[in-house]
Amino acid sequence: MISASALKALREIVGRENYLDSEADKLLYSYDGTPMLRQKPDAVVIPRSADVVSKILRLANDEGFAVVPRGSGSGLSGGSVPVPNSVVLLFPPMNKILSIDEVNLTAKVEAGVITARLQSEVEKRGLFYPPDPGSANISTVGGNVAENAGGLRGLKYGVTKNYVLALDVILPSGEPIALGSESVKDVQGLNLRDIFIGSEGALGIFTTITLRLLPKPEHSVVMMMPFDSIATVGEFVAETMLARITPAMLEFLDRNTIRAVEDYAKLGLPTNVAALVLVELDGYKSVVEAEAQKIAAIARKLGASSIASAETLDDATRLKLARKSAFSALARLKPTTILEDASVPRSKLPEMLLKLEEFAKQESVLVGNFGHLGDGNLHPTCLINERDSDEVRRSERFFERAFETAVKFGGAITGEHGTGLAKKKYLEMATGKTQVDLMRKFKQILDPNNVLNPSKMFDIESLFRSKCERKIARPT
Amino acid sequence: MISASALKALREIVGRENYLDSEADKLLYSYDGTPMLRQKPDAVVIPRSADVVSKILRLANDEGFAVVPRGSGSGLSGGSVPVPNSVVLLFPPMNKILSIDEVNLTAKVEAGVITARLQSEVEKRGLFYPPDPGSANISTVGGNVAENAGGLRGLKYGVTKNYVLALDVILPSGEPIALGSESVKDVQGLNLRDIFIGSEGALGIFTTITLRLLPKPEHSVVMMMPFDSIATVGEFVAETMLARITPAMLEFLDRNTIRAVEDYAKLGLPTNVAALVLVELDGYKSVVEAEAQKIAAIARKLGASSIASAETLDDATRLKLARKSAFSALARLKPTTILEDASVPRSKLPEMLLKLEEFAKQESVLVGNFGHLGDGNLHPTCLINERDSDEVRRSERFFERAFETAVKFGGAITGEHGTGLAKKKYLEMATGKTQVDLMRKFKQILDPNNVLNPSKMFDIESLFRSKCERKIARPT
Repeated sequence: MISASALKALREIVGRENYLDSEADKLLYSYDGTPMLRQKPDAVVIPRSADVVSKILRLANDEGFAVVPRGSGSGLSGGSVPVPNSVVLLFPPMNKILSIDEVNLTAKVEAGVITARLQSEVEKRGLFYPPDPGSANISTVGGNVAENAGGLRGLKYGVTKNYVLALDVILPSGEPIALGSESVKDVQGLNLRDIFIGSEGALGIFTTITLRLLPKPEHSVVMMMPFDSIATVGEFVAETMLARITPAMLEFLDRNTIRAVEDYAKLGLPTNVAALVLVELDGYKSVVEAEAQKIAAIARKLGASSIASAETLDDATRLKLARKSAFSALARLKPTTILEDASVPRSKLPEMLLKLEEFAKQESVLVGNFGHLGDGNLHPTCLINERDSDEVRRSERFFERAFETAVKFGGAITGEHGTGLAKKKYLEMATGKTQVDLMRKFKQILDPNNVLNPSKMFDIESLFRSKCERKIARPT
Repeated sequence: MISASALKALREIVGRENYLDSEADKLLYSYDGTPMLRQKPDAVVIPRSADVVSKILRLANDEGFAVVPRGSGSGLSGGSVPVPNSVVLLFPPMNKILSIDEVNLTAKVEAGVITARLQSEVEKRGLFYPPDPGSANISTVGGNVAENAGGLRGLKYGVTKNYVLALDVILPSGEPIALGSESVKDVQGLNLRDIFIGSEGALGIFTTITLRLLPKPEHSVVMMMPFDSIATVGEFVAETMLARITPAMLEFLDRNTIRAVEDYAKLGLPTNVAALVLVELDGYKSVVEAEAQKIAAIARKLGASSIASAETLDDATRLKLARKSAFSALARLKPTTILEDASVPRSKLPEMLLKLEEFAKQESVLVGNFGHLGDGNLHPTCLINERDSDEVRRSERFFERAFETAVKFGGAITGEHGTGLAKKKYLEMATGKTQVDLMRKFKQILDPNNVLNPSKMFDIESLFRSKCERKIARPT
């Protein structure tokens, strides 16, 4: 429990109207998008300025409580789940788009801006912010930067990190720093900026973010095609790459997922196929049309029976609905949905998918697979009942084997969701102890009292230090 | 001086045939591409494997000498200039291209591979490695990663960092680690990989590097056009951006540079104009041709008297020669050529260029300006005689004012050359003390004895610790 005096000081910093501590509020902010993780905070506050964030962190260092920054809470690794003795900071109210510069192709925003709102604002000006996490309609840019969010356009356009130019950050000590610059080219000193991107709220809190934009593609086409085997899907990806085509989106759904989606959304999908592949091509109209023909030819050659194609926004949205509703559709099958995101090199995808099917059978858990074929980022989704402890154990074994295989194939235990609480126990297996120790030391340099989003990604024993010890260690 | 016993142990580690210590060798490796920086090493060695690099670094920690990794020595910030009591490690002999994967679009190379060789090898397969530093014909991939090298294609394709997937690194302690993965999507733990990119040889030594590749553009056009004023050049850049065109190359030469080039290469350039702008467009033929027409229309509207255009490789190379020979041409005018690379947001370029002309006049130094219009990365080049101490002082004042202005405009003191020895004294002005202190702490965590390329970017007082103190501090 945080002391009453500390909470009183906190309330004075943020103002009564920005201070929430009813049981309902604590319950509401006790979890995020990650299943089976819950912890009530001692209080929830809305910081209205960088200066307030600073003051809160100074107080946290003085009083020895933890601070957990939160965007929209859509994260899938527990990054914004509170820890014991913590205060949650809500950023959605800090949601100004400060500038959109059409010559420098940059946008400067507050951390709480919703990603989809930024996308539509820049698109009105003929510009384009490519990162497109599945949560874009609700997630914040700050949360996206904290998790280095990926999404559907990774293959052609990369991830959030590739679009962050500058960050205004409040360090765990409460000190503000400005990382990066508005120049696309900036190599002064060590690249501190990029270690803050994807730091899952543990190294600093972002207040404003300057992003790089692109011109909006002139045209796009979405195509959907069924394949009879996972191996053929692999061949399709390989032949697309060998044809030197880089789709903006290259997604798939496996049989279990297709059936769940069809059952849920009634889209008239073929339920007797091994996989459905979705392709989006964007760019200049003439190029997109030529590439669409090549893609169709490759698919037909590999036996795709029917190829749906959409050029209008409405038709495209309808086709994408199959992929977009995958998670919700699967979620209906069982009380608990565990969505993971191991990634492997593109060429290892078919092998990885067959392994996942094998592991699911052996552990007798219901698994649906879908995800980003183009960048090798899979979303094996385990459907269980968290009250069935044996099923929970079997699902854990399934994921453990899945992660080990991903690493063995030269991939990663997480491609875009982050490590957080959900995957911290696998981190050392994936990166080795030396790297996790290095990460711990970097965290300790920035946050000696371990007040900022502690115990995410990895544990630090100083977390268990008493408040007075913390005071001794306070940076001067 | 490194002790005779330490040098003997070093010779045994690398083998006599890989150990150089003649006065000629020491002189040959006492400098790099940066003017006015010279320091003889105690020895120069060729490590033939990662294991040998490991052993050398362990010895350096035991014996308390410094290790300076060196690619081709083409760096322009002194990154590979030896320090007192140092051994230079030469990487060009580690030059195997280990694999080129046409489905995953990756290349795995040893650190000593020459960048242009990698480019031509992947282009033979219809692939493309975009980073294109001016030194590409001689610089190594390892050196490019160490400096996060930029180049001519930054606007459209970004810099070296955007293409590094995985790094095999030997830490200063001698311990090997593997950073990143072959997956394009990888967010496990903190992003350690990217702080090693651009770390100027001070955090670790790269042995193998896995790079991301793109499909090779189908077609390209190079255009050259003169403008009567710097302000018009700014309008040209702005209108190009507003037309949503992203050239692969957008370069310029100012009057002084044009005259030097014409005098040197006799290309028939117009010497009575304020600036020459070079544009390269690449992509699908139909798109490139349409964009070329738009660019020409914008240029004509802004008064460009003549527009040269080249579609064949030979013609394009001829046009590019004006830009490529800028440095050599300017270098002929005076004994000493100081090439810098401040960067500013694109829209600030004209203002910045006028400032540079003003500073050059006020400090009465001869300055030629050229560089990367598209990404705001300028190369003010000061031509002096280093034996004229007053002229040296005036050139220093010129650059100091240039860097302060770049930072004031939201830019950086270095866009692509790095901080090294040449710009370390400006680093704190550019990033603030808090950031430099953080950089120091990160360096100290990785290199407590400060043996690896010490005193580059910033100084660390432990550098001046005695050998025995170093031994005490040795990591266990």
